[in-house]
Amino acid sequence: MAFVNKKVKVAAPATVANLVCGFDILGLCLHDPYDIMEVELLNEKKVIVKSADGYPLPEDPALNTAGAPLLEMLKEVEDNIGFSVLIHKRIKPGSGVGSSAASAAGAVVAANHLLDNRFTKDELVQFAMFGEKVASGVKHADNVTPCIFGGVTLIRSIFPLDIVPLSSPPLYVTVVHPQIEVRTADARAILKQKVLLKDAIKQWGNIAGLVAGFLKNDYDLIGRSLEDYLVEPVRSILIPGFDDLKKACKAAGALGGGISGSGPSIFMLSKEESTAKEVEKVMQQCYTQLGIDFHTYLTTINTGGVKILD
Amino acid sequence: MAFVNKKVKVAAPATVANLVCGFDILGLCLHDPYDIMEVELLNEKKVIVKSADGYPLPEDPALNTAGAPLLEMLKEVEDNIGFSVLIHKRIKPGSGVGSSAASAAGAVVAANHLLDNRFTKDELVQFAMFGEKVASGVKHADNVTPCIFGGVTLIRSIFPLDIVPLSSPPLYVTVVHPQIEVRTADARAILKQKVLLKDAIKQWGNIAGLVAGFLKNDYDLIGRSLEDYLVEPVRSILIPGFDDLKKACKAAGALGGGISGSGPSIFMLSKEESTAKEVEKVMQQCYTQLGIDFHTYLTTINTGGVKILD
Repeated sequence: MAFVNKKVKVAAPATVANLVCGFDILGLCLHDPYDIMEVELLNEKKVIVKSADGYPLPEDPALNTAGAPLLEMLKEVEDNIGFSVLIHKRIKPGSGVGSSAASAAGAVVAANHLLDNRFTKDELVQFAMFGEKVASGVKHADNVTPCIFGGVTLIRSIFPLDIVPLSSPPLYVTVVHPQIEVRTADARAILKQKVLLKDAIKQWGNIAGLVAGFLKNDYDLIGRSLEDYLVEPVRSILIPGFDDLKKACKAAGALGGGISGSGPSIFMLSKEESTAKEVEKVMQQCYTQLGIDFHTYLTTINTGGVKILD
Repeated sequence: MAFVNKKVKVAAPATVANLVCGFDILGLCLHDPYDIMEVELLNEKKVIVKSADGYPLPEDPALNTAGAPLLEMLKEVEDNIGFSVLIHKRIKPGSGVGSSAASAAGAVVAANHLLDNRFTKDELVQFAMFGEKVASGVKHADNVTPCIFGGVTLIRSIFPLDIVPLSSPPLYVTVVHPQIEVRTADARAILKQKVLLKDAIKQWGNIAGLVAGFLKNDYDLIGRSLEDYLVEPVRSILIPGFDDLKKACKAAGALGGGISGSGPSIFMLSKEESTAKEVEKVMQQCYTQLGIDFHTYLTTINTGGVKILD
């Protein structure tokens, strides 16, 4: 068969997974930062992944975050085709805002565009999860789902995969990435395997409140629900300044926020842009005082997900 | 001050607490069954509660489910007034559909009507919880909240009380009350104090899905989310025939359902009335075969809660 497009360029955005109380089930998509990916159709069954920035990548595409999902996709494609991928990496790996997910999601959305969108978004998430497995050892969908769907997403269940896109009111998202290393494996390892039922009940009260807040456009409810009794108290130990920064951001007017993914980035949601700017200042002051290098981003919820540029 | 109304009659409906995965946080209000309560204003600071059915009640109103909330309310009232309550009990105590909550909620809504609605619904819930404390030893809001607010309600947090009314699509509710005794205290005692984090995550995925299903009018999502990994597997042991009945109800087309409150009643949600009728037949067959006496109710979600009759 003939394909209309031979090449495509996409923007693959950063994402925030977990959303405080929504550990392992809720995520949202950001406008900034994002990777640029150029994907080209090949007329043989192979996958090539290259970095445009000289960033070292594994030669074997099966060991690469963008390559592994495309190899999975090709298993479902009868045509004798393949893909060549060039990645302009702008989302710093290890920052906790879905850098690996952006590579995986960007690759499959771009490839699907070249294949005249024959796969559903749910199928693209399934493919992209193979990239997360390469990156972290776990086939999780926390970041690839909001990256592909855009907006706020709920993963009700992972086996079988059940994705529920959630509407939300406009929100400003301020992110600070302190330049320290928090290994996802460490962040997982320190979690307690067992939790008190009474704490779990508080947690799911907040999850229910957060989902209702998004769907009812209730900013106050979103803010009240952004409490985490189970994961944040344990994981925040790995992030210097976390507690003080969170308090200061809320004092500056943020609705709430917490650890992005497994960290070290911290995100805060605000109703107004002016508040989000104040929150950014607070973040900058905090890590300047602590003498830790950092980046900040002030952005909004990206309802479109991976974007076809040309 | 002068009060416009001296007497009022209300219908105080049954409620379903817990809603499967929504343990301790979600509840809904039914049209049937309901108690009838007649409340009269007295010109002295006292509370009298009487049964219209000869059902024995404690003489001390502080020990009575309807009396205790009214005594709490009177603490907030400067006027030298009181209330006399006559209860026509139609919701069988111990059935698991909020019999005590109906007495408590009906009493405070009726009294508030006589006081020209000076208290908010949130305040009425606070008063009514004192009735639950008398009934079960725990000041819970699981049933009084949907009884007072109507519809589907989320209790995001109990201290401080944070109630979130949720919209829902029209639903038929079939309830079977097998005439066995399940003591709330026993149903509480057999719960595990600690749960696996991975099970809690599945549970809150379903809670998030259920809330989203109600707010998005998504019947299928409601059905898929009505799974309980933590409480039902333990509590259902106390209810003969539970597993088979649930399977048969779902096979008959029910979206899903489970234990109402702490049991022994079982509820099932259906999209269509015809399905709900089939579900009712299944329930009748099940407990007829088991040789256990039962009642069934086929009703709908009551969005109004306690209703002023005259």
